[in-house]
Amino acid sequence: MLTRNAAPASHLGLQSGRGVRLACRSGRLDGPTAGLAPGFVQGNLAILPRDWADEFLRFCVANPKPCPLIGIAEPGDPRLPALGADLDIRTDLGRYRVWRDGQLAEEPADVRTVWRDDLVSFVIGCSFSFEEPLIAAGIPIRHIACGRNVSMYRTNLPTTPAGRFHGPLVVSMRPLKPADAIRAVQITSRLPAVHGAPVHLGLPEAIGISDLSKPDFGDAVPIEPGELPVFWACGVTPQAAIAAARPPFAITHAPGCMLVTDLKSAQFAAI
Amino acid sequence: MLTRNAAPASHLGLQSGRGVRLACRSGRLDGPTAGLAPGFVQGNLAILPRDWADEFLRFCVANPKPCPLIGIAEPGDPRLPALGADLDIRTDLGRYRVWRDGQLAEEPADVRTVWRDDLVSFVIGCSFSFEEPLIAAGIPIRHIACGRNVSMYRTNLPTTPAGRFHGPLVVSMRPLKPADAIRAVQITSRLPAVHGAPVHLGLPEAIGISDLSKPDFGDAVPIEPGELPVFWACGVTPQAAIAAARPPFAITHAPGCMLVTDLKSAQFAAI
Repeated sequence: MLTRNAAPASHLGLQSGRGVRLACRSGRLDGPTAGLAPGFVQGNLAILPRDWADEFLRFCVANPKPCPLIGIAEPGDPRLPALGADLDIRTDLGRYRVWRDGQLAEEPADVRTVWRDDLVSFVIGCSFSFEEPLIAAGIPIRHIACGRNVSMYRTNLPTTPAGRFHGPLVVSMRPLKPADAIRAVQITSRLPAVHGAPVHLGLPEAIGISDLSKPDFGDAVPIEPGELPVFWACGVTPQAAIAAARPPFAITHAPGCMLVTDLKSAQFAAI
Repeated sequence: MLTRNAAPASHLGLQSGRGVRLACRSGRLDGPTAGLAPGFVQGNLAILPRDWADEFLRFCVANPKPCPLIGIAEPGDPRLPALGADLDIRTDLGRYRVWRDGQLAEEPADVRTVWRDDLVSFVIGCSFSFEEPLIAAGIPIRHIACGRNVSMYRTNLPTTPAGRFHGPLVVSMRPLKPADAIRAVQITSRLPAVHGAPVHLGLPEAIGISDLSKPDFGDAVPIEPGELPVFWACGVTPQAAIAAARPPFAITHAPGCMLVTDLKSAQFAAI
Protein backbone atom coordinates (compact mmCIF):
# COMPACT_ATOMS: atom_id res chain seq x y z
CA MET A 1 0.00 0.00 0.00
CA LEU A 2 2.75 2.40 0.98
CA THR A 3 5.02 2.39 -2.02
CA ARG A 4 8.03 4.38 -2.96
CA ASN A 5 8.88 5.30 -6.50
CA ALA A 6 11.39 2.74 -7.74
CA ALA A 7 13.83 5.35 -9.09
CA PRO A 8 16.88 5.89 -6.85
CA ALA A 9 16.55 8.60 -4.21
CA SER A 10 19.35 10.63 -5.75
CA HIS A 11 17.40 10.91 -9.02
CA LEU A 12 14.34 12.23 -7.20
CA GLY A 13 16.13 14.96 -5.27
CA LEU A 14 15.53 13.04 -2.04
CA GLN A 15 18.86 13.96 -0.45
CA SER A 16 17.49 17.03 1.35
CA GLY A 17 14.48 17.78 3.50
CA ARG A 18 13.08 20.16 0.91
CA GLY A 19 13.67 17.60 -1.85
CA VAL A 20 11.64 14.96 0.00
CA ARG A 21 8.85 17.43 0.78
CA LEU A 22 8.62 18.51 -2.87
CA ALA A 23 8.52 14.86 -3.97
CA CYS A 24 5.63 14.23 -1.56
CA ARG A 25 3.86 17.43 -2.64
CA SER A 26 4.05 16.49 -6.31
CA GLY A 27 2.93 12.89 -5.67
CA ARG A 28 6.27 11.38 -6.74
CA LEU A 29 6.74 9.95 -3.21
CA ASP A 30 3.95 8.44 -1.12
CA GLY A 31 5.83 5.95 1.06
CA PRO A 32 8.22 5.64 4.01
CA THR A 33 10.99 8.15 4.46
CA ALA A 34 13.52 5.96 6.34
CA GLY A 35 16.95 6.51 4.83
CA LEU A 36 15.93 9.55 2.78
CA ALA A 37 17.61 12.96 3.22
CA PRO A 38 20.40 11.65 5.46
CA GLY A 39 21.26 14.05 8.26
CA PHE A 40 17.95 15.92 8.12
CA VAL A 41 15.56 15.76 11.07
CA GLN A 42 12.39 13.77 10.48
CA GLY A 43 9.31 14.20 12.65
CA ASN A 44 6.08 12.57 13.74
CA LEU A 45 2.96 14.57 12.95
CA ALA A 46 -0.19 15.13 15.02
CA ILE A 47 -2.87 17.62 13.96
CA LEU A 48 -5.79 18.41 16.24
CA PRO A 49 -8.70 20.86 16.33
CA ARG A 50 -8.00 23.99 18.36
CA ASP A 51 -10.33 22.94 21.20
CA TRP A 52 -8.22 19.78 21.70
CA ALA A 53 -4.85 21.33 20.95
CA ASP A 54 -4.20 22.89 24.36
CA GLU A 55 -4.73 19.57 26.11
CA PHE A 56 -2.54 17.78 23.56
CA LEU A 57 0.20 20.37 24.08
CA ARG A 58 0.02 19.75 27.82
CA PHE A 59 0.18 16.00 27.14
CA CYS A 60 3.37 16.43 25.11
CA VAL A 61 5.00 18.68 27.71
CA ALA A 62 4.10 16.19 30.44
CA ASN A 63 5.60 13.31 28.44
CA PRO A 64 8.76 14.70 26.86
CA LYS A 65 10.45 11.34 26.20
CA PRO A 66 7.77 9.95 23.85
CA CYS A 67 6.54 13.40 22.70
CA PRO A 68 9.52 15.76 22.26
CA LEU A 69 8.01 18.77 20.49
CA ILE A 70 10.13 20.21 17.70
CA GLY A 71 7.47 22.43 16.11
CA ILE A 72 3.95 23.81 16.65
CA ALA A 73 2.04 25.74 13.98
CA GLU A 74 -0.35 28.64 14.51
CA PRO A 75 -4.02 27.54 14.52
CA GLY A 76 -5.26 27.03 10.98
CA ASP A 77 -1.82 27.67 9.51
CA PRO A 78 -0.37 24.80 7.45
CA ARG A 79 3.08 26.41 7.46
CA LEU A 80 5.93 25.71 9.91
CA PRO A 81 8.67 28.01 8.64
CA ALA A 82 11.02 27.12 11.52
CA LEU A 83 11.14 23.56 10.16
CA GLY A 84 11.20 24.43 6.44
CA ALA A 85 10.83 27.75 4.64
CA ASP A 86 8.24 26.56 2.12
CA LEU A 87 6.78 23.74 4.24
CA ASP A 88 3.07 22.95 3.73
CA ILE A 89 1.98 20.40 6.32
CA ARG A 90 -1.08 19.45 4.17
CA THR A 91 0.94 18.10 1.25
CA ASP A 92 4.53 17.52 2.32
CA LEU A 93 4.23 14.06 3.86
CA GLY A 94 3.98 10.95 1.72
CA ARG A 95 0.99 9.46 3.50
CA TYR A 96 -1.37 10.59 6.27
CA ARG A 97 -3.84 9.01 8.64
CA VAL A 98 -7.18 10.75 9.22
CA TRP A 99 -8.88 9.84 12.51
CA ARG A 100 -12.55 10.37 13.32
CA ASP A 101 -13.73 9.77 16.91
CA GLY A 102 -10.47 7.94 17.67
CA GLN A 103 -10.91 5.54 14.76
CA LEU A 104 -8.64 5.40 11.72
CA ALA A 105 -10.85 6.66 8.85
CA GLU A 106 -8.58 6.94 5.82
CA GLU A 107 -4.94 7.09 4.70
CA PRO A 108 -4.72 9.80 2.02
CA ALA A 109 -1.53 11.12 0.39
CA ASP A 110 -2.71 14.71 0.86
CA VAL A 111 -4.98 16.37 3.44
CA ARG A 112 -5.90 19.60 1.64
CA THR A 113 -9.50 18.41 1.14
CA VAL A 114 -10.02 17.81 4.88
CA TRP A 115 -8.06 20.84 6.11
CA ARG A 116 -9.85 23.21 8.50
CA ASP A 117 -9.09 26.67 9.80
CA ASP A 118 -9.09 25.45 13.42
CA LEU A 119 -6.40 22.75 13.02
CA VAL A 120 -3.15 22.97 14.99
CA SER A 121 -0.13 20.98 13.78
CA PHE A 122 2.38 19.43 16.17
CA VAL A 123 5.70 17.96 15.00
CA ILE A 124 7.37 15.53 17.39
CA GLY A 125 10.96 14.22 17.21
CA CYS A 126 11.55 10.80 15.65
CA SER A 127 14.02 8.02 16.34
CA PHE A 128 15.25 8.11 12.72
CA SER A 129 17.37 11.05 13.91
CA PHE A 130 19.23 9.00 16.52
CA GLU A 131 19.74 5.93 14.35
CA GLU A 132 22.14 7.86 12.11
CA PRO A 133 24.66 8.61 14.90
CA LEU A 134 24.31 5.03 16.18
CA ILE A 135 25.21 3.68 12.75
CA ALA A 136 28.02 6.22 12.46
CA ALA A 137 29.38 4.81 15.76
CA GLY A 138 29.48 1.32 14.24
CA ILE A 139 26.37 0.06 16.05
CA PRO A 140 24.31 -2.12 13.70
CA ILE A 141 20.55 -1.45 13.64
CA ARG A 142 18.75 -4.72 13.01
CA HIS A 143 15.54 -3.45 11.40
CA ILE A 144 17.51 -1.34 8.94
CA ALA A 145 19.79 -4.29 8.12
CA CYS A 146 16.64 -6.40 7.60
CA GLY A 147 14.90 -3.72 5.51
CA ARG A 148 11.96 -3.67 7.93
CA ASN A 149 10.09 -1.09 10.00
CA VAL A 150 11.23 -0.84 13.62
CA SER A 151 9.41 -3.06 16.17
CA MET A 152 7.07 -1.08 18.43
CA TYR A 153 5.16 -2.24 21.52
CA ARG A 154 2.52 -0.90 23.89
CA THR A 155 3.93 -1.11 27.43
CA ASN A 156 2.29 -1.24 30.85
CA LEU A 157 3.96 2.09 31.66
CA PRO A 158 1.28 4.80 31.71
CA THR A 159 1.91 8.20 30.21
CA THR A 160 1.19 11.22 32.41
CA PRO A 161 -2.43 12.13 31.52
CA ALA A 162 -3.32 15.67 30.46
CA GLY A 163 -6.96 16.65 29.98
CA ARG A 164 -8.58 13.97 27.85
CA PHE A 165 -5.28 12.51 26.62
CA HIS A 166 -3.90 9.40 28.27
CA GLY A 167 -2.73 5.93 27.38
CA PRO A 168 0.26 3.62 27.47
CA LEU A 169 3.82 4.53 26.62
CA VAL A 170 4.67 3.00 23.24
CA VAL A 171 8.31 1.98 22.78
CA SER A 172 10.50 1.08 19.83
CA MET A 173 12.95 -1.80 20.26
CA ARG A 174 16.42 -2.42 18.83
CA PRO A 175 18.36 -5.61 19.74
CA LEU A 176 21.94 -4.73 20.71
CA LYS A 177 24.97 -6.42 22.22
CA PRO A 178 25.43 -5.18 25.83
CA ALA A 179 28.51 -3.06 25.05
CA ASP A 180 26.64 -1.49 22.10
CA ALA A 181 23.63 -0.89 24.36
CA ILE A 182 25.86 1.05 26.78
CA ARG A 183 27.32 3.06 23.91
CA ALA A 184 23.79 3.67 22.56
CA VAL A 185 22.74 5.09 25.95
CA GLN A 186 25.66 7.51 25.74
CA ILE A 187 24.93 8.56 22.15
CA THR A 188 21.15 8.93 22.44
CA SER A 189 21.43 10.77 25.80
CA ARG A 190 22.87 13.63 23.75
CA LEU A 191 19.67 13.84 21.72
CA PRO A 192 16.74 14.58 24.07
CA ALA A 193 14.78 16.23 21.24
CA VAL A 194 14.54 12.86 19.48
CA HIS A 195 13.52 10.67 22.44
CA GLY A 196 16.91 10.73 24.20
CA ALA A 197 18.21 7.76 26.19
CA PRO A 198 16.42 4.40 26.26
CA VAL A 199 13.67 3.99 28.84
CA HIS A 200 14.30 0.29 29.44
CA LEU A 201 16.47 -2.61 28.42
CA GLY A 202 16.87 -6.31 28.91
CA LEU A 203 13.68 -7.37 30.70
CA PRO A 204 10.68 -6.88 28.37
CA GLU A 205 8.22 -8.55 30.77
CA ALA A 206 9.00 -5.88 33.37
CA ILE A 207 7.26 -3.30 31.15
CA GLY A 208 4.42 -5.56 30.07
CA ILE A 209 5.82 -6.95 26.82
CA SER A 210 5.22 -10.69 26.81
CA ASP A 211 6.30 -11.62 23.29
CA LEU A 212 8.92 -9.64 21.40
CA SER A 213 8.08 -11.52 18.21
CA LYS A 214 4.62 -9.89 18.16
CA PRO A 215 5.07 -6.13 18.02
CA ASP A 216 1.95 -3.95 18.26
CA PHE A 217 3.23 -1.71 15.44
CA GLY A 218 5.91 -2.18 12.80
CA ASP A 219 7.69 -5.44 12.04
CA ALA A 220 9.29 -8.14 14.19
CA VAL A 221 13.07 -8.54 13.94
CA PRO A 222 15.27 -11.42 15.13
CA ILE A 223 17.13 -11.10 18.45
CA GLU A 224 20.40 -13.03 18.35
CA PRO A 225 22.05 -14.82 21.30
CA GLY A 226 24.15 -12.36 23.28
CA GLU A 227 21.85 -9.43 22.48
CA LEU A 228 19.51 -7.48 24.73
CA PRO A 229 16.32 -5.75 23.61
CA VAL A 230 16.78 -2.00 24.14
CA PHE A 231 13.63 0.14 24.33
CA TRP A 232 13.21 3.81 23.48
CA ALA A 233 10.13 5.98 24.01
CA CYS A 234 8.36 6.16 20.66
CA GLY A 235 6.57 8.89 18.71
CA VAL A 236 3.65 6.51 18.12
CA THR A 237 2.69 7.17 21.76
CA PRO A 238 0.65 10.27 20.79
CA GLN A 239 -1.31 8.19 18.24
CA ALA A 240 -2.23 5.80 21.07
CA ALA A 241 -3.28 8.81 23.17
CA ILE A 242 -5.41 10.14 20.30
CA ALA A 243 -7.04 6.73 19.92
CA ALA A 244 -7.78 6.75 23.68
CA ALA A 245 -9.02 10.37 23.82
CA ARG A 246 -11.23 9.98 20.73
CA PRO A 247 -11.25 13.55 19.45
CA PRO A 248 -13.89 13.94 16.69
CA PHE A 249 -11.14 14.74 14.16
CA ALA A 250 -7.37 14.35 13.99
CA ILE A 251 -4.64 13.83 11.42
CA THR A 252 -1.32 12.03 11.91
CA HIS A 253 1.41 10.78 9.60
CA ALA A 254 1.08 7.17 8.42
CA PRO A 255 3.68 4.92 10.12
CA GLY A 256 7.11 5.48 8.60
CA CYS A 257 5.96 8.36 6.38
CA MET A 258 7.51 11.21 8.36
CA LEU A 259 7.75 14.94 7.87
CA VAL A 260 11.29 15.65 6.67
CA THR A 261 12.50 19.06 7.83
CA ASP A 262 15.32 21.42 6.85
CA LEU A 263 16.91 21.03 10.31
CA LYS A 264 20.06 18.94 10.60
CA SER A 265 20.10 16.16 13.21
CA ALA A 266 23.53 17.28 14.42
CA GLN A 267 21.96 20.61 15.50
CA PHE A 268 19.94 18.69 18.08
CA ALA A 269 22.87 17.35 20.15
CA ALA A 270 22.58 18.63 23.73
CA ILE A 271 26.29 18.29 24.40
CA MET B 1 41.04 -9.36 60.06
CA LEU B 2 40.43 -5.94 58.58
CA THR B 3 38.83 -4.02 61.39
CA ARG B 4 37.81 -0.45 61.84
CA ASN B 5 37.95 1.38 65.14
CA ALA B 6 34.45 1.27 66.62
CA ALA B 7 34.30 5.00 67.35
CA PRO B 8 32.16 6.99 64.87
CA ALA B 9 34.03 8.35 61.83
CA SER B 10 33.28 11.94 62.85
CA HIS B 11 35.11 11.44 66.14
CA LEU B 12 38.21 10.17 64.35
CA GLY B 13 38.47 13.06 61.91
CA LEU B 14 37.52 10.69 59.05
CA GLN B 15 35.45 13.24 57.14
CA SER B 16 38.37 14.42 54.96
CA GLY B 17 41.05 12.72 52.92
CA ARG B 18 43.79 14.04 55.20
CA GLY B 19 41.86 12.93 58.27
CA VAL B 20 41.63 9.34 57.00
CA ARG B 21 45.31 9.30 56.02
CA LEU B 22 46.37 10.56 59.45
CA ALA B 23 44.18 7.93 61.12
CA CYS B 24 45.87 5.22 59.04
CA ARG B 25 49.32 6.70 59.68
CA SER B 26 48.78 6.69 63.46
CA GLY B 27 47.34 3.18 63.48
CA ARG B 28 43.85 4.31 64.53
CA LEU B 29 42.39 2.98 61.27
CA ASP B 30 43.47 -0.28 59.63
CA GLY B 31 40.30 -1.32 57.77
CA PRO B 32 38.12 -0.54 54.75
CA THR B 33 37.56 3.06 53.71
CA ALA B 34 34.12 2.72 52.07
CA GLY B 35 31.90 5.56 53.24
CA LEU B 36 34.74 7.54 54.86
CA ALA B 37 35.59 11.09 53.78
CA PRO B 38 32.50 11.52 51.59
CA GLY B 39 33.20 13.45 48.39
CA PHE B 40 36.94 12.77 48.45
CA VAL B 41 38.53 10.66 45.71
CA GLN B 42 39.74 7.24 46.82
CA GLY B 43 42.26 5.26 44.82
CA ASN B 44 43.64 1.78 44.18
CA LEU B 45 47.38 1.45 44.84
CA ALA B 46 50.05 -0.47 42.92
CA ILE B 47 53.74 -0.12 43.74
CA LEU B 48 56.37 -1.76 41.54
CA PRO B 49 60.16 -1.78 41.24
CA ARG B 50 61.51 0.68 38.69
CA ASP B 51 62.47 -2.06 36.22
CA TRP B 52 58.82 -3.16 36.11
CA ALA B 53 57.25 0.28 36.38
CA ASP B 54 57.57 1.33 32.74
CA GLU B 55 55.75 -1.79 31.57
CA PHE B 56 53.08 -1.34 34.22
CA LEU B 57 52.58 2.24 33.13
CA ARG B 58 52.12 1.08 29.55
CA PHE B 59 49.65 -1.54 30.81
CA CYS B 60 47.57 1.15 32.55
CA VAL B 61 47.62 3.45 29.52
CA ALA B 62 46.58 0.56 27.29
CA ASN B 63 43.69 -0.33 29.63
CA PRO B 64 42.23 2.99 30.75
CA LYS B 65 38.84 1.63 31.83
CA PRO B 66 40.15 -0.75 34.56
CA CYS B 67 43.34 1.27 35.21
CA PRO B 68 42.57 5.01 35.07
CA LEU B 69 45.75 6.62 36.44
CA ILE B 70 45.19 9.50 38.83
CA GLY B 71 48.73 9.74 40.20
CA ILE B 72 52.30 8.45 39.67
CA ALA B 73 55.14 9.12 42.13
CA GLU B 74 58.79 9.69 41.30
CA PRO B 75 60.92 6.53 41.66
CA GLY B 76 61.74 5.94 45.31
CA ASP B 77 59.58 8.83 46.46
CA PRO B 78 56.75 7.91 48.86
CA ARG B 79 55.10 11.31 48.38
CA LEU B 80 52.35 12.20 45.90
CA PRO B 81 51.75 15.89 46.59
CA ALA B 82 49.23 16.25 43.75
CA LEU B 83 46.93 13.88 45.65
CA GLY B 84 47.65 15.18 49.19
CA ALA B 85 50.17 17.74 50.46
CA ASP B 86 51.52 15.58 53.28
CA LEU B 87 50.73 12.19 51.75
CA ASP B 88 53.11 9.32 52.59
CA ILE B 89 52.19 6.28 50.52
CA ARG B 90 54.07 3.97 52.97
CA THR B 91 51.81 4.71 55.95
CA ASP B 92 48.63 6.39 54.76
CA LEU B 93 46.57 3.33 53.80
CA GLY B 94 44.90 1.17 56.42
CA ARG B 95 46.18 -2.14 55.11
CA TYR B 96 48.54 -3.24 52.31
CA ARG B 97 49.30 -6.39 50.40
CA VAL B 98 52.94 -7.30 49.75
CA TRP B 99 53.49 -9.57 46.76
CA ARG B 100 56.61 -11.67 46.10
CA ASP B 101 56.94 -13.45 42.75
CA GLY B 102 53.25 -12.87 42.09
CA GLN B 103 52.18 -14.50 45.36
CA LEU B 104 50.53 -12.68 48.24
CA ALA B 105 53.19 -12.69 51.00
CA GLU B 106 51.77 -10.53 53.79
CA GLU B 107 49.14 -7.90 54.65
CA PRO B 108 50.83 -5.28 56.84
CA ALA B 109 49.30 -2.00 58.04
CA ASP B 110 52.47 -0.10 57.10
CA VAL B 111 55.16 -0.73 54.41
CA ARG B 112 58.02 1.42 55.75
CA THR B 113 60.02 -1.68 56.64
CA VAL B 114 59.85 -3.09 53.08
CA TRP B 115 60.20 0.26 51.26
CA ARG B 116 62.98 0.51 48.65
CA ASP B 117 64.51 3.39 46.76
CA ASP B 118 63.53 1.89 43.41
CA LEU B 119 59.77 1.64 44.06
CA VAL B 120 57.31 3.56 41.88
CA SER B 121 53.78 4.18 43.20
CA PHE B 122 50.73 4.24 40.94
CA VAL B 123 47.31 5.41 42.11
CA ILE B 124 44.34 4.26 40.05
CA GLY B 125 40.77 5.57 40.20
CA CYS B 126 38.22 3.65 42.25
CA SER B 127 34.51 2.98 41.88
CA PHE B 128 33.81 4.40 45.34
CA SER B 129 33.99 7.79 43.58
CA PHE B 130 31.12 7.01 41.22
CA GLU B 131 28.90 5.35 43.82
CA GLU B 132 28.39 8.70 45.55
CA PRO B 133 26.77 10.41 42.54
CA LEU B 134 24.70 7.27 41.88
CA ILE B 135 23.33 7.37 45.42
CA ALA B 136 22.81 11.13 45.12
CA ALA B 137 20.69 10.39 42.02
CA GLY B 138 18.47 8.06 44.04
CA ILE B 139 19.97 4.84 42.69
CA PRO B 140 20.31 2.26 45.47
CA ILE B 141 23.64 0.41 45.67
CA ARG B 142 22.99 -3.11 46.93
CA HIS B 143 26.36 -3.92 48.49
CA ILE B 144 26.31 -0.68 50.47
CA ALA B 145 22.73 -1.34 51.61
CA CYS B 146 23.86 -4.84 52.66
CA GLY B 147 27.02 -3.58 54.37
CA ARG B 148 29.19 -5.80 52.17
CA ASN B 149 32.13 -5.38 49.83
CA VAL B 150 31.21 -5.04 46.14
CA SER B 151 31.06 -8.28 44.10
CA MET B 152 34.00 -8.65 41.69
CA TYR B 153 34.55 -11.22 38.96
CA ARG B 154 37.31 -12.27 36.58
CA THR B 155 35.90 -12.13 33.03
CA ASN B 156 36.88 -13.82 29.79
CA LEU B 157 37.66 -10.38 28.34
CA PRO B 158 41.44 -10.02 28.01
CA THR B 159 43.20 -6.83 28.91
CA THR B 160 45.55 -5.36 26.32
CA PRO B 161 48.96 -6.82 27.28
CA ALA B 162 51.96 -4.54 27.80
CA GLY B 163 55.38 -6.05 28.35
CA ARG B 164 55.08 -8.76 30.98
CA PHE B 165 51.67 -7.55 32.21
CA HIS B 166 48.54 -9.28 30.98
CA GLY B 167 45.49 -11.03 32.36
CA PRO B 168 41.70 -10.88 32.44
CA LEU B 169 39.59 -7.80 32.92
CA VAL B 170 38.15 -7.87 36.45
CA VAL B 171 34.73 -6.24 36.83
CA SER B 172 32.64 -5.05 39.76
CA MET B 173 28.90 -5.74 39.64
CA ARG B 174 25.92 -3.81 40.94
CA PRO B 175 22.34 -5.12 40.45
CA LEU B 176 20.09 -2.35 39.14
CA LYS B 177 16.60 -1.96 37.75
CA PRO B 178 16.83 -1.32 33.98
CA ALA B 179 15.85 2.36 34.20
CA ASP B 180 18.44 2.86 36.96
CA ALA B 181 21.02 1.03 34.82
CA ILE B 182 20.39 3.50 32.00
CA ARG B 183 20.72 6.45 34.41
CA ALA B 184 23.89 4.88 35.85
CA VAL B 185 25.41 4.72 32.35
CA GLN B 186 24.71 8.44 31.98
CA ILE B 187 26.14 9.36 35.39
CA THR B 188 29.27 7.20 35.26
CA SER B 189 30.03 8.21 31.65
CA ARG B 190 30.85 11.63 33.11
CA LEU B 191 33.57 10.09 35.29
CA PRO B 192 36.14 8.41 33.02
CA ALA B 193 38.87 8.86 35.68
CA VAL B 194 37.02 6.45 37.96
CA HIS B 195 36.24 3.66 35.44
CA GLY B 196 33.58 5.58 33.50
CA ALA B 197 30.58 3.83 31.94
CA PRO B 198 29.82 0.15 32.52
CA VAL B 199 31.54 -2.33 30.21
CA HIS B 200 28.67 -4.82 30.19
CA LEU B 201 25.21 -5.47 31.52
CA GLY B 202 22.53 -8.09 31.63
CA LEU B 203 24.22 -11.20 30.23
CA PRO B 204 26.99 -12.37 32.62
CA GLU B 205 27.69 -15.57 30.69
CA ALA B 206 28.64 -13.48 27.63
CA ILE B 207 31.73 -12.27 29.52
CA GLY B 208 32.57 -15.62 31.11
CA ILE B 209 30.77 -15.25 34.45
CA SER B 210 28.85 -18.47 35.09
CA ASP B 211 27.63 -17.91 38.66
CA LEU B 212 26.98 -14.44 40.05
CA SER B 213 26.61 -15.87 43.55
CA LYS B 214 30.31 -16.81 43.54
CA PRO B 215 32.37 -13.66 43.04
CA ASP B 216 36.14 -14.03 42.64
CA PHE B 217 36.72 -11.06 44.97
CA GLY B 218 34.50 -9.29 47.49
CA ASP B 219 31.12 -10.50 48.65
CA ALA B 220 28.05 -11.89 46.89
CA VAL B 221 24.90 -9.76 46.95
CA PRO B 222 21.31 -10.73 46.12
CA ILE B 223 19.89 -9.85 42.69
CA GLU B 224 16.16 -9.24 42.91
CA PRO B 225 13.58 -10.03 40.18
CA GLY B 226 13.40 -7.14 37.71
CA GLU B 227 17.08 -6.26 38.16
CA LEU B 228 19.99 -6.63 35.76
CA PRO B 229 23.61 -7.16 36.78
CA VAL B 230 25.61 -4.13 35.62
CA PHE B 231 29.37 -4.52 35.27
CA TRP B 232 32.08 -1.87 35.55
CA ALA B 233 35.80 -2.27 34.87
CA CYS B 234 37.47 -2.72 38.26
CA GLY B 235 40.67 -1.47 39.84
CA VAL B 236 41.44 -5.02 41.00
CA THR B 237 42.41 -5.73 37.36
CA PRO B 238 46.01 -4.53 37.96
CA GLN B 239 46.33 -6.92 40.92
CA ALA B 240 45.36 -9.78 38.58
CA ALA B 241 47.96 -8.52 36.09
CA ILE B 242 50.61 -8.40 38.83
CA ALA B 243 49.71 -11.95 39.85
CA ALA B 244 50.08 -13.00 36.19
CA ALA B 245 53.34 -11.09 35.55
CA ARG B 246 54.96 -12.30 38.81
CA PRO B 247 57.32 -9.41 39.49
CA PRO B 248 59.73 -10.35 42.32
CA PHE B 249 58.27 -7.60 44.51
CA ALA B 250 55.12 -5.46 44.51
CA ILE B 251 52.83 -3.71 46.97
CA THR B 252 49.11 -3.02 46.55
CA HIS B 253 46.33 -1.87 48.85
CA ALA B 254 44.36 -4.60 50.60
CA PRO B 255 40.84 -4.93 49.13
CA GLY B 256 38.63 -2.09 50.31
CA CYS B 257 41.48 -0.28 52.11
CA MET B 258 41.99 2.51 49.62
CA LEU B 259 44.19 5.57 49.50
CA VAL B 260 41.97 8.56 50.34
CA THR B 261 43.16 11.73 48.59
CA ASP B 262 42.54 15.45 49.00
CA LEU B 263 40.88 15.61 45.54
CA LYS B 264 37.11 15.99 45.37
CA SER B 265 35.18 13.49 43.26
CA ALA B 266 33.19 16.31 41.69
CA GLN B 267 36.43 17.66 40.17
CA PHE B 268 36.63 14.52 38.05
CA ALA B 269 33.42 15.01 36.06
CA ALA B 270 34.25 15.18 32.34
CA ILE B 271 31.14 17.21 31.51
